[in-house]
Order: sequence, then C-alpha cells, then structure tokens
Amino acid sequence: MKYTFDLKMKVRDYECDLQGIVNNANYQHYIEHTRHEYLHSVGISFAAMHERGIDAVVARLTMAFKTPLRSGDEFLSRLYLKRDGIKYVFYQDIFRLPDMKCVIKAIVDTVCIVDGRLGTCDELDQKLTFHE
Amino acid sequence: MKYTFDLKMKVRDYECDLQGIVNNANYQHYIEHTRHEYLHSVGISFAAMHERGIDAVVARLTMAFKTPLRSGDEFLSRLYLKRDGIKYVFYQDIFRLPDMKCVIKAIVDTVCIVDGRLGTCDELDQKLTFHE
Amino acid sequence: MKYTFDLKMKVRDYECDLQGIVNNANYQHYIEHTRHEYLHSVGISFAAMHERGIDAVVARLTMAFKTPLRSGDEFLSRLYLKRDGIKYVFYQDIFRLPDMKCVIKAIVDTVCIVDGRLGTCDELDQKLTFHE
Amino acid sequence: MKYTFDLKMKVRDYECDLQGIVNNANYQHYIEHTRHEYLHSVGISFAAMHERGIDAVVARLTMAFKTPLRSGDEFLSRLYLKRDGIKYVFYQDIFRLPDMKCVIKAIVDTVCIVDGRLGTCDELDQKLTFHE
Repeated sequence: MKYTFDLKMKVRDYECDLQGIVNNANYQHYIEHTRHEYLHSVGISFAAMHERGIDAVVARLTMAFKTPLRSGDEFLSRLYLKRDGIKYVFYQDIFRLPDMKCVIKAIVDTVCIVDGRLGTCDELDQKLTFHE
Repeated sequence: MKYTFDLKMKVRDYECDLQGIVNNANYQHYIEHTRHEYLHSVGISFAAMHERGIDAVVARLTMAFKTPLRSGDEFLSRLYLKRDGIKYVFYQDIFRLPDMKCVIKAIVDTVCIVDGRLGTCDELDQKLTFHE
Repeated sequence: MKYTFDLKMKVRDYECDLQGIVNNANYQHYIEHTRHEYLHSVGISFAAMHERGIDAVVARLTMAFKTPLRSGDEFLSRLYLKRDGIKYVFYQDIFRLPDMKCVIKAIVDTVCIVDGRLGTCDELDQKLTFHE
Repeated sequence: MKYTFDLKMKVRDYECDLQGIVNNANYQHYIEHTRHEYLHSVGISFAAMHERGIDAVVARLTMAFKTPLRSGDEFLSRLYLKRDGIKYVFYQDIFRLPDMKCVIKAIVDTVCIVDGRLGTCDELDQKLTFHE
C-alpha cells in the first residue's frame, strides 16, 4: 500500500457550483487540508511553523480531474510524499466512496521559505515519511 | 437538552484569514452545512429538493460572534428548530471543543420557494422536529 | 443621499451554488470587501492595522436576503456608518444593476480589539465619516 | 502581443490566509473567472451553456506559483487559447500591478461534456480566438 496518510471527508453543498458538481478550486482546498492534517498527525502545526518564520508554500501544482464529486458524496483523500532536492513532492489522490472511483490525481511541489528565503526545515525532514 | 442535531467539525487552515482566525463568512458555511446534514439525517436531500423545484432559502440571518476559532480548533455545531408561520427558524450555536466556549450564536429564518413562489413543503413539515 | 461609499462589483460564477444563485456566505464576503475598500479609500489598511496589533472584528451581523444575485449580475454595494459607544455600526445594502432592485440589507456591528482587548482606535475615529 | 484577453482584478482580504498571502485555491478562482469573462466578452454564457446541457469542464490544470499576491494588490489576469484535438487549452498568466511581476503561470485543459458525454461545441469553435 503506497499511501502514507488517508483523510475521509464529505462534500459540503456550498462547495458545489451551478453545474451541480464540486467547483474545481475546492479540490485544492481538500488536498491542502489533507496535507495540513498529515503534518498535524506527525506533530507539525502549519500555523505554528508560520509563527516561527517558516512557511511551507506550493511552488507547482498539477491536477488531473477524473470524476466530479457531487452533493452528499463522501471521499477519501490520500497522500504519499517524496523528497526531490529541496522540494517536498506530495502525490495526492482523491477517491469517491464507497466505489473508490478516482476523482482527481494531483502532484504538489512544495518548498520551505525561511525568513523570506528558500530554505530547509529539519523538523519536516525528521518527522515526515518519504517514499524513495 | 434543547438541541435536535449536533455536528462535530474542525477548522481547515484555508478558512483562516490574515488575522489568523476563521473568516466570518465561513461560519455561514458551517451552519449551512449543519442544516443540510440535519436534513440529510432525516432523509431529506437539499440537492434533490432543488431538482424537484423546491428551494429552501435563507430570508434572514442574525449572527453574534463571541469567540473566534483558530487553526486546528475542533467545534460542535448544534441546532434546533421552530416553526413560525411559513418560516422555519433555525437556532444554531457553535461551541469550541473541548472547553465548550461559545463561538457564535445564530438565528436563521428560512422559507420555501416552490416553482419560484413562496410556498410550503409537506416533506419538511413531516420529517423535521420542531420546538414549541 | 445617505450612502458614504459605493463599490460596483460583479458576480463570479464560482460564487453561485447548485441552486444557480449566489451562495449566501458570499454576501458576507462582498460586504466585508466593501468595508475594507471603504477603509482603503480613506487611507486605512486593514492588513496594516493588524500588523500594529489592532483588529477590527465583527461582533454582530444581521442580513435580510431580498433578491438573489445570479451568474453575470452586476451590483452596487453601498454603505454608511454610525458610531454607537465603542461600536462602529455599518449599514450595508446591495442593489442589483441596472434595475437597482434590493438584494440584501445588512447591519454590521464592529469593534476594535487592541492587543487582545476591546479598545478604541483614534485613526478610525478621525478618518471615517459617521452619520448621526 | 500574444494574449487574447486581459482582466484587471484586485485581491480581496478574505482571499488571504494566515500566512498573509492569497490562498492558492483562489488563483484557480481568478483564472476560472477570467475564462468565463473572456467567454462572456465574445457572447458566450457559461451558465446558459449549462442550461442547454453543455458543460465546459477542466480536465487538467498545471499552475506554477512565482510570487504571492498580498492584501491590496492589484493584478492583471491574461489568457490566450489553443485548440488541441477536442481540448481547449487555456494559457493563463497573472501579473502583479504595477510592476508586472509574474504571479502564476497556468495551463488549463478544458473539454466539453454534451449531455453527459465528451463532445464538441460549435459555438465555442466559432466565437473563440485560437493561437496556432
């Protein structure tokens, strides 16, 4: 099993747009929340990092939209992580429940900004789990 | 115990604004989602009602903001309901967990629009629980 | 003419929900943005105030929803302001363009939190225009 | 000059998150709104297309984040378009004003869903301007 972290979520009606499906920008919210919950699960607070002058920011994002979620749908948001130089690359896939149909596949390159400059973060390196 | 329905939720970081607290408009999202989940719990789908030409809409909203929620906070969103003429009046309070400090108190007047006009909805009248 | 400040805006499609109308929480966004643009127009930055330890926060909000906005609608967001003790009370109305049909009427009580406590803000008192 | 359409916009404070910068998902909102305004400028309504059973949907999105926008920033959202088989590929770049520093560069593959199936849309083919 390749995923490091799973978060079960449910569509909220205000996230659906006039096409009756979840507006695309909300998938970015879902996967951001999943990353932050993953960090939280290993004892890292995104807000507390910001207070200390360390901001993890997204440098690049690719999302493929496979099947739209609709009102009432539950889904599983899953991720695993690779290290690539100074980048933390999150592989994040969302699956509709209960049929596990793929909703989106995303790759998110993040970097650390330390006191305004690209930097490294030992706390992340030690606490996160990386795939090779 | 006066509340008819409880929903446990958690702040998502993207809901916080540059003051570091949940942006006020998100409380409206939280309480809307709570109403829809309550409807869902008694077998009513907001989206399916819309498909049949019945839209429950908010006519009036009052919110008192007591204590702001912050990144990582969990909270309990609770509601009970009264009938007032053709209005369904939702009393919705949010409490921070675990200290149950009051976050917001809201009163939401909703009405039914049936095929474009103010109307009544037997399904709501039969399935919802009303306080006197 | 009673309004102190007008802002012309346009509905963005992602603000509409599965009922095809602007989701209610977005009206809170519209009127917040209007307040901040009004502050900006008199030389006050909401973000800069926050940096100095002064946060203007909403204590109470009442909104009456009259006519929903739809995809493509333009609208005028207008406000005037009264002082009531330590409260700044914003009266904010939105009108659809070009027919000026009333969309919402809102009353927003705001207070200043200075270094974590209820306080006053001379800058606001001097630069804002108050109705009696 | 390669861009077909420009839209000037301004950051709204509620779009900023606890890092004090625009939350990434809002860039997806900005570029979606820009596409819809471009369609509108050539006489195509996204909402009206939906009513007729034609939904333009995003199949794939790539965004590179260069410089974050902050509270009060104005920006120019620009696009041009290529046709690639049944895909409409939007190249969308955002530049901060007035220094025209690049904020994001995005490529958005969209397709048409006609009555639930991948299809073509003559109206789009005739009214849109394509780069080779």
